[in-house]
Amino acid sequence: MTAVSVDLDLARSMFAELERGTRVGRGIVRTTYGEGENFAHALTERVARGLGLEIARDAALNLYMTLPGRDRALPRIVTGSHMDSVPQGGNYDGAAGVVAGLAALAGLKAANIQPVRDVTVMAVRGEEAAWFDSHYIGSIAAFGKFPVADFAVPRSDTRQPLGEAMQQAGCDLDALRRGEAHFRPQDIAAYLEVHIEQGPVLENAGVPVGIVTGIRGCLRHSEARCFGTYAHSGATPREARRDAVAATVELLQRLDESWSEIERSGGDLVFTVGQLHTDPGFDGPSKVAGETRFVLDFRGLDDAVMQRASDTAQLLASEIASRRNVRFDLGAPSYSTPAVMDPGIRRKLAARAAEAGIPAMELASGAGHDAAVFASYGVPTGMIFIRNANGSHNPDEAMAIEDFSLAAGLLADTIAGDGI
Amino acid sequence: MTAVSVDLDLARSMFAELERGTRVGRGIVRTTYGEGENFAHALTERVARGLGLEIARDAALNLYMTLPGRDRALPRIVTGSHMDSVPQGGNYDGAAGVVAGLAALAGLKAANIQPVRDVTVMAVRGEEAAWFDSHYIGSIAAFGKFPVADFAVPRSDTRQPLGEAMQQAGCDLDALRRGEAHFRPQDIAAYLEVHIEQGPVLENAGVPVGIVTGIRGCLRHSEARCFGTYAHSGATPREARRDAVAATVELLQRLDESWSEIERSGGDLVFTVGQLHTDPGFDGPSKVAGETRFVLDFRGLDDAVMQRASDTAQLLASEIASRRNVRFDLGAPSYSTPAVMDPGIRRKLAARAAEAGIPAMELASGAGHDAAVFASYGVPTGMIFIRNANGSHNPDEAMAIEDFSLAAGLLADTIAGDGI
Repeated sequence: MTAVSVDLDLARSMFAELERGTRVGRGIVRTTYGEGENFAHALTERVARGLGLEIARDAALNLYMTLPGRDRALPRIVTGSHMDSVPQGGNYDGAAGVVAGLAALAGLKAANIQPVRDVTVMAVRGEEAAWFDSHYIGSIAAFGKFPVADFAVPRSDTRQPLGEAMQQAGCDLDALRRGEAHFRPQDIAAYLEVHIEQGPVLENAGVPVGIVTGIRGCLRHSEARCFGTYAHSGATPREARRDAVAATVELLQRLDESWSEIERSGGDLVFTVGQLHTDPGFDGPSKVAGETRFVLDFRGLDDAVMQRASDTAQLLASEIASRRNVRFDLGAPSYSTPAVMDPGIRRKLAARAAEAGIPAMELASGAGHDAAVFASYGVPTGMIFIRNANGSHNPDEAMAIEDFSLAAGLLADTIAGDGI
Repeated sequence: MTAVSVDLDLARSMFAELERGTRVGRGIVRTTYGEGENFAHALTERVARGLGLEIARDAALNLYMTLPGRDRALPRIVTGSHMDSVPQGGNYDGAAGVVAGLAALAGLKAANIQPVRDVTVMAVRGEEAAWFDSHYIGSIAAFGKFPVADFAVPRSDTRQPLGEAMQQAGCDLDALRRGEAHFRPQDIAAYLEVHIEQGPVLENAGVPVGIVTGIRGCLRHSEARCFGTYAHSGATPREARRDAVAATVELLQRLDESWSEIERSGGDLVFTVGQLHTDPGFDGPSKVAGETRFVLDFRGLDDAVMQRASDTAQLLASEIASRRNVRFDLGAPSYSTPAVMDPGIRRKLAARAAEAGIPAMELASGAGHDAAVFASYGVPTGMIFIRNANGSHNPDEAMAIEDFSLAAGLLADTIAGDGI
């Protein structure tokens, strides 16, 4: 039992209204700075006003809904997530975190608990890069760091520039250009984000709640290539071949084995080859392949482990290339840094879950979240995951309201205890 | 020194005229039943008439040029090859075999050697399936076995049906429909084909002449697939993955290792994956791949070895599928049977090469040849390969006239000795 009872009726009704208002065909469509996201923000503001929360908005139209604390001069707690969705997404990816914040504050109010410090539920704008190839638009803008060059980024379907869409929604582009911040890192005691898990870890473990250890960074060789020589498959014996497929296959198999070793020794890493192609303009069923293209995607919580994996790829490629008489060009990797969740917050979330009898386990987040932005600016940050079947970014997201209730309760207890 | 001196001037002049008449841009274009092939046949007939050979043609316009033997009732020796080329091919693939036959007969005539039996140089029509997807048109038609349904096969560039192209060239389609044969297998004591090697084996070994052991058959899974589940690369740990790329890579790597073992144990096999693709409509750099498509191409001289390789693929696929939680569908393989060259002819060719001091080695042919048709009808068949750099089916074929001279000399000595 959690100490605070969250307002599940409020949560159920918000989820139902969100779904009614933003379902298009099978899936949910809450376009960044478009109709669906605007609808979700308007609904959220209405609910917050009904709870008597203080309402604020910033230049990027992030929505802040605050329950005043006993000492308003103290750095506040911020909780929340984003309201936009991918095209044909589900109802919970993002929205669950905002609903959890409001349901928790409603619970605190109902129990007449005034927190030590201000607690703000933040409905973040523009987290899903599916619409505009600009990352964490809302949360970066809240810190006054929005990269104004991104105003020109076109929407993936309509090609409308991001700046125009923001202006139409009512954003203050000049304030964004000036770098006007809604808050500074030192104004925030902690950022706590509730989010559905986008992978199957909790589902497979049979555990309803996850405490996130960190958000994995990504070291990616997007344009890796292997160059050999096209040749007749029947007439070219092994020793005369410069076979790009055979060399690539050996590299990928050995990287898969190397990943197993890293996991066995306790390193956090996931390794994926999501794209792998011979050249459709030149390949053939009876031709030794002269070229392959592939992606090496390494993700992990530890810079050093990812870097070591990439170094291993280079070493193996060079060894295989000289033995198989081909040339690899893995290309310069792109890199996003891992975000470590605050160890103190992790411990406290775990302790509160144990007190309340909520089954919880620690896990890493493979997907990115607004929490990564807060952590990168030095805000002590924690995340609570809710078990969810079928992944996210699709209409089949399946979060049980009972699991939501446990996660929102853990959030409410943590806020009430001010254990930050 | 060969016993018979072949007529190298005739050969040089034929190659030069062929090149002048059928070069288009960088490469050679001798279209099956088109301008280039017709030109080559007309030139060949003119040269044969100059040598005083008997000329015949069949319903498919194969050209037969015969030097009468001492006993005309005996089954004859046929030598030759095809005159057509792939689009933008080289000057020697095919033509070298016809030129070698004429240069050899010219040498015999100059030395006043009358062979024991008739010797016919055959200029075969339509061997390159690049123009019409119909295989060994000319040599099959010579035996009266042309599959008349193939009259409808469209030319790969102009879409003109094969039957129409044959009619325009002057073929007798009715005779082909009746299955009229130019000869029966029992009319032929031996078929001997000289051809440039299309792989690098002789070039790499530094040996000018090859004696072919057999023409490899091909067991091919053209539409092999692996089915997994698309998932977020960062959020899906190894144990939850159904990764089509990882499973496919493991299968291909293990088949490559299995190929090495077969080679070490003396089996004749080449294994090639010429096409390998994730699904470009669904794959992504940060997605575990849900599907792959690939080709497994096994070639060899021994049915049983190819079949064992295919069985191994099925076994490995099933083991990997259950361990990695994916599904493989290798599909039903297509199959072309290997053609074994006559052991007696191989021995005699080797013995004559040794007598004449011609450096020669045995090797398998990975590419198909008209010789495979003769062998399949039970004609004792042999092939002589000429060293050739840069492969064939491209403008960079590089056959030295000195190497040609050795191969044609070996052919001439073999004919003169009637060692069939």
